[in-house]
Amino acid sequence: MIAAIELGGTKTVVATGSADGIVHEEWRLPTTQPQETFGHLVNWLRKRGSPTAIGVGAFGPIGVIPGGDDYGKLLATPKPGWSRFSIVEALANAFPQARVIIETDVNAATLAEARLGAAKGLDDVAYITIGTGIGAGILSGARLIHGALHPEFGHIKVPRQPGDDFAGVCPFHADCLEGLASGPAIAARWGMPAAELPADHPVWDTEAWYLAHGALSLLGIVAPARIIIGGGVSQAAGLHSKTEALLNKISAGYFAPLLQTPYLVAPTLGQQAGIIGGLLLTSLTSHR
Amino acid sequence: MIAAIELGGTKTVVATGSADGIVHEEWRLPTTQPQETFGHLVNWLRKRGSPTAIGVGAFGPIGVIPGGDDYGKLLATPKPGWSRFSIVEALANAFPQARVIIETDVNAATLAEARLGAAKGLDDVAYITIGTGIGAGILSGARLIHGALHPEFGHIKVPRQPGDDFAGVCPFHADCLEGLASGPAIAARWGMPAAELPADHPVWDTEAWYLAHGALSLLGIVAPARIIIGGGVSQAAGLHSKTEALLNKISAGYFAPLLQTPYLVAPTLGQQAGIIGGLLLTSLTSHR
Repeated sequence: MIAAIELGGTKTVVATGSADGIVHEEWRLPTTQPQETFGHLVNWLRKRGSPTAIGVGAFGPIGVIPGGDDYGKLLATPKPGWSRFSIVEALANAFPQARVIIETDVNAATLAEARLGAAKGLDDVAYITIGTGIGAGILSGARLIHGALHPEFGHIKVPRQPGDDFAGVCPFHADCLEGLASGPAIAARWGMPAAELPADHPVWDTEAWYLAHGALSLLGIVAPARIIIGGGVSQAAGLHSKTEALLNKISAGYFAPLLQTPYLVAPTLGQQAGIIGGLLLTSLTSHR
Repeated sequence: MIAAIELGGTKTVVATGSADGIVHEEWRLPTTQPQETFGHLVNWLRKRGSPTAIGVGAFGPIGVIPGGDDYGKLLATPKPGWSRFSIVEALANAFPQARVIIETDVNAATLAEARLGAAKGLDDVAYITIGTGIGAGILSGARLIHGALHPEFGHIKVPRQPGDDFAGVCPFHADCLEGLASGPAIAARWGMPAAELPADHPVWDTEAWYLAHGALSLLGIVAPARIIIGGGVSQAAGLHSKTEALLNKISAGYFAPLLQTPYLVAPTLGQQAGIIGGLLLTSLTSHR
């Protein structure tokens, strides 16, 4: 029996399934206090058997370097009660025989989309999510990338769209990518949420500008064969193709991966990506 | 017997040594036509024995994905005679028993500095080189990163230094990082080469601005535990510390790896990094 957990800031999903990403049974519960949440999901799993491996995609910041002191621990988080909680320890106590693999939620979703979704069969994939914040998951050479902590893609800086003098909403960096192009940035710029802005509104040219420059940074640093763009804000009609046209323009024919079109695509697994990714994590043989 | 080859645009180095990076004997020769160059170095190696593994750090663009059609082949290069030349094939013909591992020159140097040099003992390292162009090698989770082709770090775009209206020198992108901050960009901006500009010249504030923003992009995407900055332009006195001060300012305390100081360092292996990296490539067990 293989299990997966998707630990989100407000809801948690626990599932049984197979290491190739097929969900057998799943259950959704609210994310409350850590002991309570893990108590519930451990009970649910115990009734179904004893997992040999558990893959976890979790909200962050979380330690994701196996062998590191912080592996599987929530780091400083504003979510009450969760700072320093050890997911690895909670699961090892409940299921001592199980191998536990922890990842960020966006990396788990990236793995799912790369194996079974919008980037099926590719070993070099990035997945940008745009919602309350901007983040990215990265699969490189069939391995999920962490670096010394995990990446914080939303906080890079890119050139301003000509004429744009919006101050930005990031409390740390004001006009980083997230500060200029996240959902809250759009709402602050235009006085209404992205979902209410029509397809011909100039917001989408601005959004395409910042996304194209973010994608260019990914191309120059990790050269994905395809980039998935998901999250609430990305659902605007035509945003992917508008962004791809601009990315082609600013890259001036320089980056070979762009020859595979479409290069910027929407995710296809929807809400299931996280839990499918959790199952697939258990199939990584050399994860680190 | 372990061998290494550093194939540069103008000179080539061949060496025997050990997989932990110790050079036993080395020979430098000019890089001429491929058959001639490889003829010479194969003869030199044959006189010394029969290598069981050969690590190669090569100028690019070169195919570096094992199993890919282009693995070990020079791609379209302006260097006469080298486009489509297969390094793997040339070495397999000469030494059919040898395992051959091919990498970009900057990735080989990155591995050397991470194992024996300026980032000794770290598994997450980036190495920015600034000279005629700007490039970066990336070690992430103890593995060298390629992506779908290899990365082209110099061609990302970052915000302009306030007040900077220099057009940039990149023939593809004008004002990409390389177009604004490489050696030729400095020479075009100020009318003289970097080496002749004094330490208190404003060029170094401009250079620190662009390097700090490039380093921020690496932090946000691959989160290195340390970044090495090398290459001719980087040798200006004080440039590393000036860039680190600015990087700390623009990142506003957000990136944990920056707490390890100094974060931006000079390389320590000098001209030997490439050939040492070639030897170390033969020690990678799961290279891909």
